[in-house]
Amino acid sequence: MGARSRLTRRGLLASSAAAAAGVLAAPAAAARAAAPVQVAEPVQVDGSAVEPFHGSHQAGVATTPQAHAAFLGLDLRSGVGREAVGRMMRLLSDDARRLTAGTPALADTEPELAVLPARLTVTFGFGPGLFAAAGLADSRPASVEPLPRFAIDKLESRWNGGDVLVQICSDDPLTVAHALRMIVKDARAFTRVRWIQRGFRRAAGVRKAGLTQRNVMGQLDGTANPVPGTPAFDRAVWAGGDAPAWLHGGTTLVLRRIRAELETWDAADRVAKEFTVGRRLDTGAPLTGAAEHDPPDFARLTAVGFPVISEYAHIRRAHSPDPAKGIFRRVYNYDDGLSAAGHADSGLIFASYQADVAAQFLPIQRRLAEADLLNEWTTPIGSAVFAIPPGCPPGGWIGQSLLE
Amino acid sequence: MGARSRLTRRGLLASSAAAAAGVLAAPAAAARAAAPVQVAEPVQVDGSAVEPFHGSHQAGVATTPQAHAAFLGLDLRSGVGREAVGRMMRLLSDDARRLTAGTPALADTEPELAVLPARLTVTFGFGPGLFAAAGLADSRPASVEPLPRFAIDKLESRWNGGDVLVQICSDDPLTVAHALRMIVKDARAFTRVRWIQRGFRRAAGVRKAGLTQRNVMGQLDGTANPVPGTPAFDRAVWAGGDAPAWLHGGTTLVLRRIRAELETWDAADRVAKEFTVGRRLDTGAPLTGAAEHDPPDFARLTAVGFPVISEYAHIRRAHSPDPAKGIFRRVYNYDDGLSAAGHADSGLIFASYQADVAAQFLPIQRRLAEADLLNEWTTPIGSAVFAIPPGCPPGGWIGQSLLE
Ligand code: HEM
Ligand code: HEM
Repeated sequence: MGARSRLTRRGLLASSAAAAAGVLAAPAAAARAAAPVQVAEPVQVDGSAVEPFHGSHQAGVATTPQAHAAFLGLDLRSGVGREAVGRMMRLLSDDARRLTAGTPALADTEPELAVLPARLTVTFGFGPGLFAAAGLADSRPASVEPLPRFAIDKLESRWNGGDVLVQICSDDPLTVAHALRMIVKDARAFTRVRWIQRGFRRAAGVRKAGLTQRNVMGQLDGTANPVPGTPAFDRAVWAGGDAPAWLHGGTTLVLRRIRAELETWDAADRVAKEFTVGRRLDTGAPLTGAAEHDPPDFARLTAVGFPVISEYAHIRRAHSPDPAKGIFRRVYNYDDGLSAAGHADSGLIFASYQADVAAQFLPIQRRLAEADLLNEWTTPIGSAVFAIPPGCPPGGWIGQSLLE
Repeated sequence: MGARSRLTRRGLLASSAAAAAGVLAAPAAAARAAAPVQVAEPVQVDGSAVEPFHGSHQAGVATTPQAHAAFLGLDLRSGVGREAVGRMMRLLSDDARRLTAGTPALADTEPELAVLPARLTVTFGFGPGLFAAAGLADSRPASVEPLPRFAIDKLESRWNGGDVLVQICSDDPLTVAHALRMIVKDARAFTRVRWIQRGFRRAAGVRKAGLTQRNVMGQLDGTANPVPGTPAFDRAVWAGGDAPAWLHGGTTLVLRRIRAELETWDAADRVAKEFTVGRRLDTGAPLTGAAEHDPPDFARLTAVGFPVISEYAHIRRAHSPDPAKGIFRRVYNYDDGLSAAGHADSGLIFASYQADVAAQFLPIQRRLAEADLLNEWTTPIGSAVFAIPPGCPPGGWIGQSLLE
């Protein structure tokens, strides 16, 4: 493994070129000469569309990803314990219930901004500190704790941790701004803002909403995800069995802020970029296939005997052969600053949901940290872990099964 | 006037309540009891939609406002003169032409991100410094210079000025991010980034695209705008006549970054908020009317003898009786940070286009700075002025009439 992690970028590009030469000789190569794929067809968008708030799971996980997201990390004020957290969650659940239905929050100061929810969801999570503050350390799922430090990490404290997560998603950016403001106002007596991360995907209607998106690196991202509504998704995502009873029907979220090193990424050629991930940039097809959802053939060799999908390709390293050990990625782009020299501050707000962090996320992240060609162009700068409580029935509130 | 500017917020609220009591007694009041107006109906969105790049005017001014915008302020590097600026504008015009058509830029490093323009426009502007650097001071429109300092201003240098403006608008946020990156890369040899401001309006399709939007203060914003395609718009916006010949068919842009003081705004009641602007929050109707586009009756008095639309109401102070002296507002919201205490960093990226800054924008801004109830809740923190050159025919480039 030492040799692997010592691979230089120059070396990788050379070997990628060699391997890709083999790929190009393969029949599937015919499909890739062409201009970028045009995916547009007019799509209906409905500003009144409502995602149900109540249910056995919280909305915002299995929900087809909306175009805009704000992830809000809050810290409990000192002295806020179990009872106060319960009061806060009653209040915030009520806000979420009303706002997601397209109706103003109880003390809404701009009710006109509440009427077009555009599939608004508000999802709550509990970080390690909440369990401690509420005297409920015993109820904390064991792996809801800061991730171990990985060699690839360059974490900045301003993006780490948090006692409470509020994830606000909608197809409309003004709706996100308004919901965020109403929630923050009601959380203020109990919490301080630790961080806020805003992200985006393709606008609703610009292409068909779905699990796959183009990220800022130009890749089709989300292909090999479990599909909401399938048994594989339910098994991978929703906590049950061994998880604490209060979490059944909930899940966990690992939120990683990952900077894309776009300057050097741009310097790489397409062959190297595709070799790095193991998929084509245009169609998202695996290097061994022709269409996005063709299963990758990890065993296939090039004419000269190299694996077509490199040993160090992102999709090989990230792949979990056992679907129950998989994760559900619901990723947003960020693009925030711009340096005087014109360098973007851009990357992914990488949101991974899984029944259990230790059993599912960690093995994947360890394999990637150990060796993944993509590491050359991506840098984790933020990290946080939350338990996502189950949903609540009408009259109930999020967190009730833990806090009441 | 001294008395006016000494009016306190408390005083204003009291007088607003008094005056509004009169309003409430008037017949039109019946229309305003109700819940917020629901404006949603499913709308088609087309990611392939193209706004033409070539023409006598640049796109991005009369263009129905797109959902997302990035305003980029650049400074020329020292030593960059007329010839180099010309080279840069040829390059950037070519990028803009290709990207707005949904095709990759010439050296596009992520061509897949170029294929869904979603009405992308790229609009260029020249600040005072460009004329100086290019040795073209004589061609600078006289009022393309920093605005005079107003008493209400709390300008922060990080949001002021700029030699070159690039305004990038699209209904898709990923398209904006990609176009911005390609443009910045090609501008880098000639410029440094001075500021970047990202803004949004309602997502495409969430409601019908149009000149009016809800801003972050909850107001319907854009009602009393000249309508693109009408003679009134052409007269107010496109430079001709007295303007330097090279600018004919162009316009000017005043870009003001105006923070919304949402904490105190929230503390005001609806009566005070409506009195401040002179329009209703729900329908956007003037306080003397029932529908958004009813003309305000500035002469109307309440039963107790106060003007229904206050002497200090924003729309009275801002109104230009002569349409040729009007401005065209194409405003975006911003919502960027969030303080630890949970206070938003939010407001308007106020973009005003007019044939002549001195004759049109300045008199309005002076009246507002002098006395406008809205000043209590809004603070200009950035200011920049640009000449927006005319459009170019196929084969031409933006700025040619000035620089060649
Ligand atoms: C900026 C960072 C990252 C980028 C740009 C990125 C990009 C991609 C792309 C393009 C694919 C292929 C298409 C797809 O199936 O979605 C992929 C697959 C995948 N990625 Fe990532 N990824 C990043 C970070 C991560 C991290 C941190 C993890 C987990 C720790 C991860 C886990 C996965 C998994 C599980 C797959 C599917 C593998 C399979 O085929 O089974 N990725 N990623
Ligand atoms: C954050 C700052 C501002 C806010 C929230 C704001 C809001 C509004 C609103 C709600 C209206 C009524 C609806 C409409 O016609 O659009 C309006 C009208 C108008 N505003 Fe502003 N505005 C702001 C700053 C400015 C500035 C800086 C100017 C120009 C210097 C300006 C010029 C106008 C004009 C010309 C009108 C139309 C007046 C008429 O009825 O003829 N506004 N504004």
